[in-house]
Amino acid sequence: MSRTRPVTVVVDAVGGDHAPAQILDGVRAALAENPDVRIILTGPADVVEPFADAAGGRVEAVATTEIIEMGEHPASAVRSTKDSSIVVGARLVREKRADALFSAGSTGACMAAATLVMGRIKGVSRPAIATVIPTAGPPCVLLDVGANADCKPDNLLQFAEMGEAYASVVLGVERPRVALLNIGEEPTKGSMLAQESHALLAEKLPSFTGNIEGREVLTGAADVIVTDGFTGNVALKLLEGTSSVLLGQVKDAMTSSLPATLAAAVLKPAMMRLKSQLDPDTYGGAPLLGIDGVCIIGHGSSGPVAVKNAISVAVQAVEGDLTGRIADAVAAN
Amino acid sequence: MSRTRPVTVVVDAVGGDHAPAQILDGVRAALAENPDVRIILTGPADVVEPFADAAGGRVEAVATTEIIEMGEHPASAVRSTKDSSIVVGARLVREKRADALFSAGSTGACMAAATLVMGRIKGVSRPAIATVIPTAGPPCVLLDVGANADCKPDNLLQFAEMGEAYASVVLGVERPRVALLNIGEEPTKGSMLAQESHALLAEKLPSFTGNIEGREVLTGAADVIVTDGFTGNVALKLLEGTSSVLLGQVKDAMTSSLPATLAAAVLKPAMMRLKSQLDPDTYGGAPLLGIDGVCIIGHGSSGPVAVKNAISVAVQAVEGDLTGRIADAVAAN
Repeated sequence: MSRTRPVTVVVDAVGGDHAPAQILDGVRAALAENPDVRIILTGPADVVEPFADAAGGRVEAVATTEIIEMGEHPASAVRSTKDSSIVVGARLVREKRADALFSAGSTGACMAAATLVMGRIKGVSRPAIATVIPTAGPPCVLLDVGANADCKPDNLLQFAEMGEAYASVVLGVERPRVALLNIGEEPTKGSMLAQESHALLAEKLPSFTGNIEGREVLTGAADVIVTDGFTGNVALKLLEGTSSVLLGQVKDAMTSSLPATLAAAVLKPAMMRLKSQLDPDTYGGAPLLGIDGVCIIGHGSSGPVAVKNAISVAVQAVEGDLTGRIADAVAAN
Repeated sequence: MSRTRPVTVVVDAVGGDHAPAQILDGVRAALAENPDVRIILTGPADVVEPFADAAGGRVEAVATTEIIEMGEHPASAVRSTKDSSIVVGARLVREKRADALFSAGSTGACMAAATLVMGRIKGVSRPAIATVIPTAGPPCVLLDVGANADCKPDNLLQFAEMGEAYASVVLGVERPRVALLNIGEEPTKGSMLAQESHALLAEKLPSFTGNIEGREVLTGAADVIVTDGFTGNVALKLLEGTSSVLLGQVKDAMTSSLPATLAAAVLKPAMMRLKSQLDPDTYGGAPLLGIDGVCIIGHGSSGPVAVKNAISVAVQAVEGDLTGRIADAVAAN
């Protein structure tokens, strides 16, 4: 489990709304924070080469000549755009020249490149996108948040196993509590998928604690919450939207009068802490689990902090042998 | 559409966590607020008769002798407990002695009593539970929030038609904008159910505006949001849970130091307004749409304000001929 050589993370320099400037700022911050990490930057030569030259020996530039356009069909784009920053990045991991891939480019293109080029872990039928959400207690892994809109109970069992490995390796949870997102507490509640998944999880997964309802998601009652990619994506975006609207309304309340504005100034530090706690950048990106190699997908809006944190998550995942842990868990069932 | 006779609402006096005291307080408030409403109270004689005597001619007591226990299977409980407050209430509406039913008792028992005793509107295949959620803009009708965990596209079309009628009659929205909850903007995104429902809604419903993602639910971008009862229930409970956790954290931030506590006191009125705006009691209850007669299901925790508001919603629904509007909308497709 313990590695002596440094971890190498491929970073797609041109994926994301704020690429390349903020991606490169994030890489710079990651290099400063973690003296052992090495970076391979993929992207156009005029972007990646000057940066690598300036960074000294810890950054390697791999120039690419093609670009995947937003809106292209992801799988066909990956097949037809072999010299793009994402596809080349995935190939570097497959060829063991790097340990992990990070891109804040199109989620569909990342998923397609990871699945087609890096390949799935043996036995995994559907890779899933996980995300770490802040709760009133410890942070929690929610998956699938969008890779698979239609799922079967078998898929949810694998999501549970993969989420458990992630919570253990990256969040450091010793015995993750795994729950199924459902609309009632009893095993017989919910859709056919939820009922059948409950039965399968109860049979196969020792860490399964039962159903969790929407109301409990943020209370910290579970370390891993499993659901299909449709429900998970709705849930994640609803969480983000609700936080944003509510904090906006709190802000409005705080500026509704002169005394309120003065009072709010006093509260600013505490409110900023709360805001940063809810900030998706804190966890840097969403791992695509089930891929043979570590793959972290950044939000399109990723700024330097998100990039730095995503690189750090990638390093933890590599050092903790996330891929091996998932392979073992999936092979056992 | 305009009615001259008063609206009669049956209220289940013994349904809910705070029954009967807070239910009766709510009835008292509704009578004071709306001079035209009449109430029929169902429940044990010693609860309903003294109240009716004291209230004068506007409240009628209908004594019942049986009680549906929580945890009983709803449909069989409704069949075997014919003299319970909910079943008798539903029968009073079916017999046209009352116009609407309100109960804060078991949601399952209410649904079963409404469906089995009052019956469905001709052409409606699945009644749905709707709920009104506050947004940064005007309030929005979300349905189904739990009556049907597994749905077909036809069901979602009817939910859309019923939700549109509700938004028009009860929220007073002239041309409701109806959206489908989905995980992407394009018609080809989402689960098979979402994709097929999108196509059907686009074909049949002139007011359909397309998909809405979780992030936009609270922005006020739609007047009616349609989804299956599994996703809708998860979404609703997540909204409630997120609001509660976030406002709790804001409160913690506000009491994190002495200066913060003093400052927070200044902000209290604005924060209380925000809290009441998010309070589910504001909209009083969730209508079960598709039933031949108005049926409003209260939260188990309904207090006097929720009861008063639910009665007021029931009156609006009756006066605006919600049932007739739904029948017409469903018959047209």
